[in-house]
Amino acid sequence: MSQVSHHRNEHLSSSQLKRFCSVVLQKVEIPPTDADLIAESLVQANLWGVDSHGVTRMAIYVERLKRGLVNPRPRITILRETPAMAVVDGDNGSGQVVASRAMELAIAKARESGVGLVGIRNSNHFGATAFFTMMALRKEMIGVAMSNASATMAPWGGRSPYLGTNPLSVAVPAGQELPLVLDMATSVVARGKILLAAQQGESIPAGWAIDLDGEVTTDAARALDGCVLPFGGPKGSAIALLIDVLSGVLTGGVYGPHVGDLYRDMERPQCLGHMMGAIDIGWFSDVDVFKKRMDKMIRELKSLPPAKGVNEVLLPGEIEARIHQQREAEGIPLTPGVIADLRRLALEYAVPWCGAHQTSTEGRSFELA
Amino acid sequence: MSQVSHHRNEHLSSSQLKRFCSVVLQKVEIPPTDADLIAESLVQANLWGVDSHGVTRMAIYVERLKRGLVNPRPRITILRETPAMAVVDGDNGSGQVVASRAMELAIAKARESGVGLVGIRNSNHFGATAFFTMMALRKEMIGVAMSNASATMAPWGGRSPYLGTNPLSVAVPAGQELPLVLDMATSVVARGKILLAAQQGESIPAGWAIDLDGEVTTDAARALDGCVLPFGGPKGSAIALLIDVLSGVLTGGVYGPHVGDLYRDMERPQCLGHMMGAIDIGWFSDVDVFKKRMDKMIRELKSLPPAKGVNEVLLPGEIEARIHQQREAEGIPLTPGVIADLRRLALEYAVPWCGAHQTSTEGRSFELA
Repeated sequence: MSQVSHHRNEHLSSSQLKRFCSVVLQKVEIPPTDADLIAESLVQANLWGVDSHGVTRMAIYVERLKRGLVNPRPRITILRETPAMAVVDGDNGSGQVVASRAMELAIAKARESGVGLVGIRNSNHFGATAFFTMMALRKEMIGVAMSNASATMAPWGGRSPYLGTNPLSVAVPAGQELPLVLDMATSVVARGKILLAAQQGESIPAGWAIDLDGEVTTDAARALDGCVLPFGGPKGSAIALLIDVLSGVLTGGVYGPHVGDLYRDMERPQCLGHMMGAIDIGWFSDVDVFKKRMDKMIRELKSLPPAKGVNEVLLPGEIEARIHQQREAEGIPLTPGVIADLRRLALEYAVPWCGAHQTSTEGRSFELA
Repeated sequence: MSQVSHHRNEHLSSSQLKRFCSVVLQKVEIPPTDADLIAESLVQANLWGVDSHGVTRMAIYVERLKRGLVNPRPRITILRETPAMAVVDGDNGSGQVVASRAMELAIAKARESGVGLVGIRNSNHFGATAFFTMMALRKEMIGVAMSNASATMAPWGGRSPYLGTNPLSVAVPAGQELPLVLDMATSVVARGKILLAAQQGESIPAGWAIDLDGEVTTDAARALDGCVLPFGGPKGSAIALLIDVLSGVLTGGVYGPHVGDLYRDMERPQCLGHMMGAIDIGWFSDVDVFKKRMDKMIRELKSLPPAKGVNEVLLPGEIEARIHQQREAEGIPLTPGVIADLRRLALEYAVPWCGAHQTSTEGRSFELA
């Protein structure tokens, strides 16, 4: 979900932004390699147009590290394993660091066994989920990643939050065509979109959220007091629940409303759980044959006649790949609010700011859940 | 999706019905053990209230076997394997037979490696997907099963069918509480519901289907000429697509519109692909601890305040478990159309009919896709 673009957006190059974020993270005790990784994940999300999971998260990441709510130097340990699976304790490290190690482990196991499944407990917010499935993609593997999240969503039929907007990503390599990269929240929309509507005094479509009484509402303010709804009704609700079972319950971690919130729970760690999976295509099929078959499927899909009012059939990850290309060329547009947040960090940690030096009108960044 | 109940439904016991179906299937060359398995799968679906996947399928199964479109004595072979995965060729056997063997293999691999993933090609319609995930459940495992299906669904943004209503099932054991058993089509609704509305001259809700022009329609007849839509918009569409990638492309089988239709393609095999997965809980956690944690999660969910107009929060598989209990006690209600189909089979194969002997008013069964 991309933020609505504002006037006076400033464009920064991805490399400048990555360097800046990494240096700031190192100021709060993250080792250089891990700081690079976290910065890479955030800027990558901006490159894909998924600004809600981009550098807008820097301020809260730094705040939690500063308060000791995230461990900058985690001792990530394997609690249980076979050649095909593992359970990992993230030692309250940064989500990106913990989940990347876990995905590397899943990839190594898939290389050996065809399939690798690694559950993680005691982790934190990890940014965009596709960041991890695309690690598998680069190894000729299908990547699967999911996470639980703090409770903001009512299960189907309920009126109070129990589930997070638990994200799911699956990435599948192709040959000459773009890979398929699904990365979705299991809510109808990100909570941030409702926040934005409330700020602008706009109504929201029915079906996005319910109010405190458990009634579907189009009033954005009432929706914020209530909760967002799962995508696809009872089916999406079940998928969100099963993601939590795999990420939170099976890993021996924390689940449902017991997961800490990135912004609201400033006294305790989040204790997120994730599940990372890799399927090594070479064990199932000749890799080139598989890629040719994917190309054929993708071309068939792209040549389907579009529905009324639609220009073309878009496949998972296609929009993100286009925005990526554009933003690598033109820079990443950041809103005045995000710029202000980053400049505050620059000032606080005496890190040279990588953008333009004139003071922009002070703005406030809004948090996108 | 249960059929709408009609007047003059006849109730049959599950054991009578199973025996009858098995004997009929043996008349078309299915070996006794496999015939029992197929009969078990169909009657089990009826017991769950999923009549669309129950004994209503007997007539077409027998017809395809009679025409040589399904191999009654398949030589199911493992094409590739590691201790954690396999690719299996179903040799055009009955879906239930092929998928059960594959799930047994996935379970054995999970027992050894923690995870088992088995892809299947050259299979056929396999009935209710939860039948296979519940095999894993009985072994203290989480079961995952999916299949592609003949194209009746437009991908998001398209106007012509490419995807099947590719089903997904996940089953998770609990302790004293009911297990979580998700079993869903990836379409908004079963095509059979639209067929029923068309037969009764009723309109359908917007969002179920599009017409030939790719426009959302509430006219059931126009919807039948068009296609059903994926659940949850682009997200559900992507999930349906990824199920086909895993079931059809990765297995080296057939995918998208190349999959044969159970009813319409009476000149060629269906060549369905499935993917069966098992996760052995004991490798991830103490099994009793896991079950207690699941019980706690389930109790928390069940005690949530319900949404407006809802009596209680229902979890995946809960309705089916209740209907199961009721139908084991009271018998399985069959419509006159289904009874007529089964009696025709009884007559054709000289198998004693297991139900009441008075001739019911002749009805026509409708096919539920």
